[in-house]
Amino acid sequence: MLILVTNDDGIYAPGIHHLASCMPENADIYIVAPESPHSGQSSAITVKNPLRITEHKEFEKGRIKAFSINGTPVDCVKLAIHTILPGNPDLCVAGINHGSNAGNSIIYSGTLGAALETTTLGVQSIGFSLLDHSMDADFSECLPYVKQITEDVLSKGLPPRVCLNVNFPANCKINGVKVVSAAKSHWTDEYKEYVDPSGHKFYLLTGDLVNEEPENPGTDLYWLERQYGSIVPATPDQSATWEIPTIRDIVGE
Amino acid sequence: MLILVTNDDGIYAPGIHHLASCMPENADIYIVAPESPHSGQSSAITVKNPLRITEHKEFEKGRIKAFSINGTPVDCVKLAIHTILPGNPDLCVAGINHGSNAGNSIIYSGTLGAALETTTLGVQSIGFSLLDHSMDADFSECLPYVKQITEDVLSKGLPPRVCLNVNFPANCKINGVKVVSAAKSHWTDEYKEYVDPSGHKFYLLTGDLVNEEPENPGTDLYWLERQYGSIVPATPDQSATWEIPTIRDIVGE
Repeated sequence: MLILVTNDDGIYAPGIHHLASCMPENADIYIVAPESPHSGQSSAITVKNPLRITEHKEFEKGRIKAFSINGTPVDCVKLAIHTILPGNPDLCVAGINHGSNAGNSIIYSGTLGAALETTTLGVQSIGFSLLDHSMDADFSECLPYVKQITEDVLSKGLPPRVCLNVNFPANCKINGVKVVSAAKSHWTDEYKEYVDPSGHKFYLLTGDLVNEEPENPGTDLYWLERQYGSIVPATPDQSATWEIPTIRDIVGE
Repeated sequence: MLILVTNDDGIYAPGIHHLASCMPENADIYIVAPESPHSGQSSAITVKNPLRITEHKEFEKGRIKAFSINGTPVDCVKLAIHTILPGNPDLCVAGINHGSNAGNSIIYSGTLGAALETTTLGVQSIGFSLLDHSMDADFSECLPYVKQITEDVLSKGLPPRVCLNVNFPANCKINGVKVVSAAKSHWTDEYKEYVDPSGHKFYLLTGDLVNEEPENPGTDLYWLERQYGSIVPATPDQSATWEIPTIRDIVGE
């Protein structure tokens, strides 16, 4: 069994090594992750710049090998499967992300970018995230769930072209997991304005996630607030096929 | 009427100025685009670095104003609506991209990243692309279609949370437009290996798009090959809600 482990926080983030430690003992594990943090990189790819692979002997342990790439999470998945791995993996896991990828955060997430990419390449995948941004986040409560979900997926298989976006609440007992949709949500008040020493303005990203359906028990944000883990099946196909008749009316086809 | 015009090829790409020229004469047009090319940036956001806004008087003309930002297409949309525009726009158009965003290319596209972001913020949007990567691409054949689709959307409105991904064939007469889904597709043979002067390997992205359903007339790639423009309704919500029962079985919820 061959498993690819990646993330968007970079190879030095503790979350990815916790994730590798949850994989089955009879698997060959390849950690292939960005050499530096790439949060918010979505499905971005490096188009023109050279990509280089670095082996990390310091993270080798038993059947775990480790490599970093000077690129995005999607670059890591593509180049790992093309060049580094000895064959097609049976599973790709991404994370454990330091911070939430629930609600509409999935669209910006490099962790889910990696998982969605793997799905497109025909390999089943799971993105895991913990709702704590800090580098010393406590993963202990979620690790048994990570193990169990991984075992379930390996033994039963995922439907084609669907990956899982799994989020866990932080710093609390987890009551269980719920399979739901992503809550309709968006970010607001997104920039703080500053003035630099030469008098020019600049802006830094900030903001709050607004949950547009806080009372909907069919959504991830609802259950995360109630100390449950959430599992959202996610697709890389963004076609809104159900709207085709409406759009035909609008453009007069 | 207020219209935001953006792209991922950057403010100096001809396509964005062709696009601005297609907007209605009674609209105030704000071009807000990356200061350098950002192809393949998907929905990436700049998380930690300062964003700066530069006004471009050289592109001002009539009711058109122009600005660039040292960030991604999604940064441009967010910061434009937050800081630059005098109010919420009635429409955002992105493009005209130099190159295809059909099939699964949408997931990597900064042009569509911008359009999907605008949709999330409650503003209707359209991404336009021409299947010619060159900077001296000939846009003349597609411009009447860009104008007509923009007029149709402004007069009839799009459904909420759906934007349009519009692609045009290049260097040919266009036979019309078809409203369809994105063709199931993926990239293959994606890296070329090189050796640098000091003997270390590096890799550059290359590869071919494989259409997994070439005979399906319900898809964009089918019609683009037959000299039609394609219009794919696209959603930022990646939840595969229809798979929830299957995933519940797999994880035993």
